[in-house]
Amino acid sequence: MTPSDQRGPVPHGSVTLADVARHVGVSAQSVSNALHRPEKLTTETRERILAAVQELGYRPNRSARTLRSRRSHLIGVKVEPSRDDRAALLLDQFLHALAESAGQAACHLILCQAEDEHAEVEAYRELLDTTSVDAFVLAGTHAGDRRVAALRGWGVPVATFGRPWDGDDDLSWADVDGRAGLRAATDHLGAQGHTRIAHVGWPHDSDTGADRRRGWREACADRRLPVDLDAAVPDDFDAARDAAHRLLDATEPATGFVCASDTLALGVLRALAERGLRAGEQVGVTGFDNSPAAALTTPGLTSLRQPLAAVAADLVGAVLEQLDGATHRRRSLLAPELVVRASSLRGAPTDPHPSTRTSEAHR
Amino acid sequence: MTPSDQRGPVPHGSVTLADVARHVGVSAQSVSNALHRPEKLTTETRERILAAVQELGYRPNRSARTLRSRRSHLIGVKVEPSRDDRAALLLDQFLHALAESAGQAACHLILCQAEDEHAEVEAYRELLDTTSVDAFVLAGTHAGDRRVAALRGWGVPVATFGRPWDGDDDLSWADVDGRAGLRAATDHLGAQGHTRIAHVGWPHDSDTGADRRRGWREACADRRLPVDLDAAVPDDFDAARDAAHRLLDATEPATGFVCASDTLALGVLRALAERGLRAGEQVGVTGFDNSPAAALTTPGLTSLRQPLAAVAADLVGAVLEQLDGATHRRRSLLAPELVVRASSLRGAPTDPHPSTRTSEAHR
Repeated sequence: MTPSDQRGPVPHGSVTLADVARHVGVSAQSVSNALHRPEKLTTETRERILAAVQELGYRPNRSARTLRSRRSHLIGVKVEPSRDDRAALLLDQFLHALAESAGQAACHLILCQAEDEHAEVEAYRELLDTTSVDAFVLAGTHAGDRRVAALRGWGVPVATFGRPWDGDDDLSWADVDGRAGLRAATDHLGAQGHTRIAHVGWPHDSDTGADRRRGWREACADRRLPVDLDAAVPDDFDAARDAAHRLLDATEPATGFVCASDTLALGVLRALAERGLRAGEQVGVTGFDNSPAAALTTPGLTSLRQPLAAVAADLVGAVLEQLDGATHRRRSLLAPELVVRASSLRGAPTDPHPSTRTSEAHR
Repeated sequence: MTPSDQRGPVPHGSVTLADVARHVGVSAQSVSNALHRPEKLTTETRERILAAVQELGYRPNRSARTLRSRRSHLIGVKVEPSRDDRAALLLDQFLHALAESAGQAACHLILCQAEDEHAEVEAYRELLDTTSVDAFVLAGTHAGDRRVAALRGWGVPVATFGRPWDGDDDLSWADVDGRAGLRAATDHLGAQGHTRIAHVGWPHDSDTGADRRRGWREACADRRLPVDLDAAVPDDFDAARDAAHRLLDATEPATGFVCASDTLALGVLRALAERGLRAGEQVGVTGFDNSPAAALTTPGLTSLRQPLAAVAADLVGAVLEQLDGATHRRRSLLAPELVVRASSLRGAPTDPHPSTRTSEAHR
């Protein structure tokens, strides 16, 4: 990279690494680290730098990268089938972040679709056979993931959004610390004075769901609160609504709900409305994913924002390193950020600024 | 295609056109028409057939198609930059539908990103230079679209989600009839007894916004209702909230709001809550796009569902025809469907089934 001596606005397409550094107020090395050596920075600093990279339209020197390899610069990724009732939409937001990270590395995403894991492996094989795709980024890992095994068998670079729950240490991955997130949400409701805090989460065979449930249990244990109010349901609005009614019918009913997703939390909010209970004032509710609906529903829904720009940059960096012959693996567990809105605040019936109050989730 | 004599469930990957026809209860010719000659079917029939194509996992004979051309089968499409506050998400839902239609035609989508129209043209040129992309599908057309002009100049097949508002008749496009949609929404509120129906729409320089506004004006004229309550705002939650407060402060205040997007309608719902007004019972509100938030907010938001599967199938069909040398252009204006929920129903304070009641929007 050539340092730039320019001051003031820079012409389109000529933004340098130094411009980004000056804009953020960090060193050029930090900008380079944000793109290539994320473990050297805090999540918060990386997110700030990546936001500036995006805002200013900085792109690493493409010709330098092209000289370094003769790859297609195509990364394969599966997108979910479209459904009218999708709520979490997290993977759509992830896809945008991944497209940005790929673009910053002069790569493009190529999409495929599949209904189940078997079809997904077939779709990857078909992409490899019919296009010049270099690598894959996968989402939604679980123990004994056949997709990872297949790609590894074919010698194709791969990185996953989601950790390998079976302890596979030969995999590059980035994941969000759901356990820390649920701890932060539970602590937040506890700090509001709630002592009957329920958990509405996923079934016990979900590794991600079990991790989030653990965060709630740990925070309750620290506060000497009971953990008897626990519902395990599919990620479904009506299932959460029904579960909330049951937890509100308990002898000592819930006055707080930490949920494993925004879809579940929105179902809880519906149940409260059906009983004439006011979210925030009377019953505190938190979600997970900070989906668009969280900011736009009334009252606004407190939720956990996943640092998707950092996840995406890690995964693109990981597959590019593998393409360059690296044998080490990247592993990043990133903290989500609690975005506090009216649904969890006592004495805050209105919500003048939907998305301004935030606090970092710590383990 | 070979007709199948199989009965009952069919093994994975061997679904035939005849299986789809039998499943839907239509002729094989109708299934073929749904994929290749959409103008021969009603929108509703096409949507049913395309849903079955997806459900059963039917794929047209790939080897037949491959023999017919030596193309890359890659279609370029731009995705929006990621933003935390995105609400409409319509283009994400469209991307899923497009990926499905592409997959059904044995094609893949390849993504690029750009912040503005100038950068988008550059991104398309770069995709053409660095990959073997065959064609492009564009979204968000407007009069004098430079992207269409550039692609046409390069001789690259293109089709657009959105009509050419400058009367360009050399373009293949599919669009949703927003005017018919706003007419249906306004008629629905009128049928609930509302006589002060406000419109919260986009600024007057938006062609799509002007088309939707026209539908509201026409429906009001038919019902001899005034059209003095009209707000033109950016597609922004807080702008819509502020506009709703103004329209509720009028001497003869609004009791109904038809909105050009779900983001705007959700801002109106926030304003109602801030005034202690009950949506549905007291003030009727409708949105546009039937975004996930519409079903999951409380009360559920009545909205207009865009027939994205049909739009996507049209556009993929259009670019494939151009690749095959066709010189005619496809033009499809498709009606959205009003999905009625509690936000627009008088005497329906609760909402037992978030997304069951629907009715077709007619011109």
